[in-house]
This record gives sequence, structure tokens and C-alpha cells, in this order.
Amino acid sequence: MLIAHDKLYHFAKEILVAAGCPVQEAKQAATILLSADLRGVDSHGVARLSGYIRLIDKKRVNTTPTIKLVHESPSTGVIDGDEGLGLVVGPVAMKTAIEKAKTAGTGWVSVRNSNHFGIAGCYAMMALEEDCIGIAMTNASPLVAPTFSSERLLGTNPIAVAIPAGDQPPFVLDMATTTAANGKLEILQRKDQSTPEGWVQDINGEPTVDPYGVKNGGALLPLGGDKEHGSHKGYGLSSVVDIFSAILSGANYGPWVPPFVAFLDPPSDPVGKGIGHFFGAMRIDAFRPASEFKLHMDNWITRFKSAKTVVANRKVLIPGDPEREMEIQRKKEGIPLLTPVAKDLQELSRRFNVPFD
Amino acid sequence: MLIAHDKLYHFAKEILVAAGCPVQEAKQAATILLSADLRGVDSHGVARLSGYIRLIDKKRVNTTPTIKLVHESPSTGVIDGDEGLGLVVGPVAMKTAIEKAKTAGTGWVSVRNSNHFGIAGCYAMMALEEDCIGIAMTNASPLVAPTFSSERLLGTNPIAVAIPAGDQPPFVLDMATTTAANGKLEILQRKDQSTPEGWVQDINGEPTVDPYGVKNGGALLPLGGDKEHGSHKGYGLSSVVDIFSAILSGANYGPWVPPFVAFLDPPSDPVGKGIGHFFGAMRIDAFRPASEFKLHMDNWITRFKSAKTVVANRKVLIPGDPEREMEIQRKKEGIPLLTPVAKDLQELSRRFNVPFD
Repeated sequence: MLIAHDKLYHFAKEILVAAGCPVQEAKQAATILLSADLRGVDSHGVARLSGYIRLIDKKRVNTTPTIKLVHESPSTGVIDGDEGLGLVVGPVAMKTAIEKAKTAGTGWVSVRNSNHFGIAGCYAMMALEEDCIGIAMTNASPLVAPTFSSERLLGTNPIAVAIPAGDQPPFVLDMATTTAANGKLEILQRKDQSTPEGWVQDINGEPTVDPYGVKNGGALLPLGGDKEHGSHKGYGLSSVVDIFSAILSGANYGPWVPPFVAFLDPPSDPVGKGIGHFFGAMRIDAFRPASEFKLHMDNWITRFKSAKTVVANRKVLIPGDPEREMEIQRKKEGIPLLTPVAKDLQELSRRFNVPFD
Repeated sequence: MLIAHDKLYHFAKEILVAAGCPVQEAKQAATILLSADLRGVDSHGVARLSGYIRLIDKKRVNTTPTIKLVHESPSTGVIDGDEGLGLVVGPVAMKTAIEKAKTAGTGWVSVRNSNHFGIAGCYAMMALEEDCIGIAMTNASPLVAPTFSSERLLGTNPIAVAIPAGDQPPFVLDMATTTAANGKLEILQRKDQSTPEGWVQDINGEPTVDPYGVKNGGALLPLGGDKEHGSHKGYGLSSVVDIFSAILSGANYGPWVPPFVAFLDPPSDPVGKGIGHFFGAMRIDAFRPASEFKLHMDNWITRFKSAKTVVANRKVLIPGDPEREMEIQRKKEGIPLLTPVAKDLQELSRRFNVPFD
């Protein structure tokens, strides 16, 4: 099932308005949701919409938050999201980081009391139009076991970095700090296929290739997979994301991060407020003239793109290339929806009386 | 062969003075070199000393550099290292980042025209005593192939992040963005053992377990190993380190980074000056009171340390734990030197007439 981007955007926006969000916030949130669908990150797009609504139903998401800058210095800030949708809180925080960069050279904002914010790359890319490097991270519900542990103590804690170029498209890294994202397990489950080694461990912490390993109480593995292949590095990076997002701001961290799904209750002993994000913006010309920087970025990108390849038809990719190509294709052809996602959206359509076809 | 830390420090310092460094700079450089030996990062300690001297001999390292802040904003700066030792340029740049953090909340310094700076973690840790989070990165001679390429286009480009805690020791992540560091290959060569899969590819870009794979024209692999295990993430992180260190500052990047060894000439078509580093400092109380932050860091560390383990005697480690334990041991017992390293140092001893035993 293929749906045109603008139809799906309009639908998502109207559902959020019907659920209680002010129009401007609903537009902002729908834009970020749809940017995930356009870029091919299907797990973070409209497939999440019904989940967000269930959290609103349970009063775990506030549709009319008062988002406040509660602490600041010339280049830093802490924002309290007042339990708002991450898709609403995130853009305010990223804009604050960019504003700070305009006067201080860089801006860094840590956020507490927020919720799932969709795709990290989208926030980092907001910096590009201001000739800034953008950085975005978030912590997330615990699904990942640190090296040597059988417990889930960390989320897939993504890191996104967007860097402007000149004639070339920008460099946009957007990566979970695990070997594989959870969405990839769902794809394998549907195909009834095993996972590669190094993605998942079972409930006892033993390696498994069962795509249901995480669902059955196991854990995703940090980037690297096991100690011999550097999983302590993936675990370390994920920890940095957790600390920057939550301990700098006063959000929940590690195993205390509330679950994203409404059918699981948040921990009864929170160590902070909601989930945490971390945003950064660095003005290029706080380091050197942007034109010089972009000239060298173009040279960097061109050199890497033309690298000798192992297999003739598998070119070296620049981070962000696959997502940008997907975006061009899906803007033209429409966004494919899996049957269960389409069913979810039809149910929302009936409940809120918002047409969906 | 075990040598007491202070003896080895004194020797390294005297050699650097004899080679032309001013006393203060030699002390600084020797401190960083020895901190690598103490922390068990033997590949970045006194084992490098004779290599630095050969670069000085070839006039590729300037022993009396005029290190200049050439561009700045309230929270940023660019430093030109005037071809100095990285061990001398790095501390100046990190101190500049910390000074900026004192007034602007954070400080970010990109460095050009520098050389190999030793262990990254040492710079990040300079921030701890000022109640700042410290960050340090550097680019490095190309030894790493991007995903899908048979060419070496990136260095092992490390990322270090040091975060203060309260009663607990600090969190200190210091990681190459490859699956395994080059030093680990040398250990396997000496033992005549194969590498695990995912560490190295051969000259054609095919996977190999040959510990001489890199020496024979192959490459180290980005963290993840191959695409299926997330090597595009390691490649992406390494690229970010390259861009922050060199394109923000005007240093050489990617395949243009000059080799660390004197017997290989730098590329004849440089795209910048020397190698590049990137340093950051974030003042904790620019986000929240340091006492609150440290309380939660202690809680984070305690929770992770007490995580359920897969194997009873293999505890979950906090980044920095193994290095700190090594430092305590080596301060007490002395620093072990491999025979070839001891021979190198004895040769320096004869040449510069500085006693070594």
C-alpha cells in the first residue's frame, strides 16, 4: 500500500490535533514523523502514531506542555519538556541550541521530562540551514545489555551528526549505538529468518540468532557485538549518550528510562523526569569561514565517494546518502505502509473521525 | 624488564630536552607519554619516543613551536600548532577549551598543524579537576578502510570522553573507532596467532585473519567489522572525528594525513597543515549543580557495576576501570618494557648521553 507523502502528513497532523495537540505543535510533530517515513526509517514514522496516542490516553504524554528553559549559560541550556511529545519538545530544544550558537559560537542543550522524539537525524539536520554542524542524541527504554551483562540497562541510544557541505549534499550520520536496530529484528521475524551473529543475546546473556531473542527477555548488543569485536566501545558510546541526555538534564537514565509502550508501566522509583535528549549546534564560522570549510567538505566527500571498492558495483557511501535517495524516491512514488500499520491508522481514522484512505 | 615510573619519566623528559625541546614542554610531553604507559596503553607510551625523535631529526616536528590561537568565538577556537609535538600542542589546546568553558559554559578547540598526540584519554581527563566533562579526538595516518572500500582512507581516529563522578572514580571512555587497535595486531604477531574475524581486511579488501594483513597492504576495519555488523557506523564515527579535527581547523584529512613514521614521506599534495585534533570541555554547572550531577553519576556507576553478569567472575566494567587499576599497579610495581622498546631507549641513551638502566 503506497500513500502520498502529503496525504499521510495531513492525516498524522489531524490525528494529533484531534488527540489534543495545538495545531502548530501537531504540524511540527507530523513533519518529523513523516521525515522518518520519507528517509526509510519506517520504525520511527507513522508506524509510531498509534503508540503515541496510547501514551496520551494514559496521560503519560502531555499534549499542551509548557516547555521551559530552566538553566542556562552563554553556550548551554537545560530544557524541561513538561511531559510533552518528544516530537514537540525536541525542535524547541534544537532551536535553542542553534540560537545559542549564533552568539556564543556553539550551543548545547540537555533535555529532561520528554518522550520518544522520533529520528535523531532530523534534529541534527535543522542546523544545516544555519551553516552549523548539528548533533542530536537521546536515551531510550532499556533493551541493550552492557558487555558481560545479561541485564538490559541501556537503550539503543542514537547519535546523529549533520555537517554542511558546498556543492555536495550534507554528511548526515544517524546511528543507533547497537550493532542492529530493533526494527531490523521485526523484519527478520516477518521473514522467519535468523539474525546474524553479534546482534542479540538471550535471557541468560548467551549469543543467539533468534529474531525473537529480545522479545523473549534477551537483549540487543552494543555496536561491536562481543568484547572481542569491540562491544565495550558500543557500550561506552551508548553510556555517553545516556549521561549527556539524562544526567546533565535531570531525566531518567539507564534501567530507569520509562518504556515507550503504554502497556508497560514506568519504573516506580524514578531517578529523574521522563526521558532525556541532548542537542548541539556548532557554527562553522566560529572556527573558519564557512566557504573554506565547505570547499574541503566537498573535497572530502568526492574523495571518499571515488574510493577503490572491493566489489565493482558496491560504491563507498557517504553517511546520509541512502536516506536522501530514499527520500527522493518516496516523495515521488509515495510511502509504502505495511498491513498492520495501515490497520492501525484506519483504526485511528475511525476513532477520531479523520478520513484515511 | 620493569622500570620505575619516575625513572622512565625523567629519562623521557631528558631525551626530549636533549633533542631540543624547552624544559617545560619536555615535562608536559613526558607526563602524557608516561600516562599511557601507566594506564597500560603501551603502544602510545615511551615505545613512541624514538619515533618522535626520528621525526624531529627529519625536521617534521618543530621542538620550539609558537602555538597560536588563530580564530575564536566565546565558546570556540582554532589553534595552529606550528608543527610542534602533539604532546606539546594538545595540552595548550585542551587548556584553552577549559578556559572558554569557564566563561561560556563550554569550550571547543580544533587544532591544525600538529603531530601525533599520544593517548586521547589523557587530554579528556584534564577537564575533570575543573568539574568539566572533557572530550578529545584526533585524526591519524590512514590505516582504515571505509565500508565497501579496499583503500585506507581514515586513521584509527579515537574518541575520548571523561566525566566526573562523586565518590566513584570518573567515567573515562578512550576508544579507537576501529574494531581493534593496531597495537593488538603487534601482540598477535609476536605470539604467531591469527586475529579474530572482523578486525582486518587484505590488500584486495577481502576478510582475513592474518595479523600481518595491515602491514601487507590491507586495512584495519571500522568498529563493527563489516556492513552486516554495523561497520558503516564505525566508519561514520571515524569520519566525524576526521572532520571535527581537520576540516574545522584546516589540517590534513582522510588519505592526506601525514604518516607518523619518518621513513614514509607525507603526501606531496597536502590539503591542509599537519594533523588535526579536536578538544571539548563542558562545565557541569552550566547544566546543573555539580553536586547533583555527581550524585547521579555515582548512582549510574553503582547500578552498572552491580548488573547481573553472564559469567560469575566477569563483572560489568565502567569505562576507565581497567586503565585505572593498571595505573595503580604500575605505579607500585613499575612499567614493563618489551625488549625491542628497551633497546630503542638504550640507543637514545647512548646518542644523547642520558643515562638509562
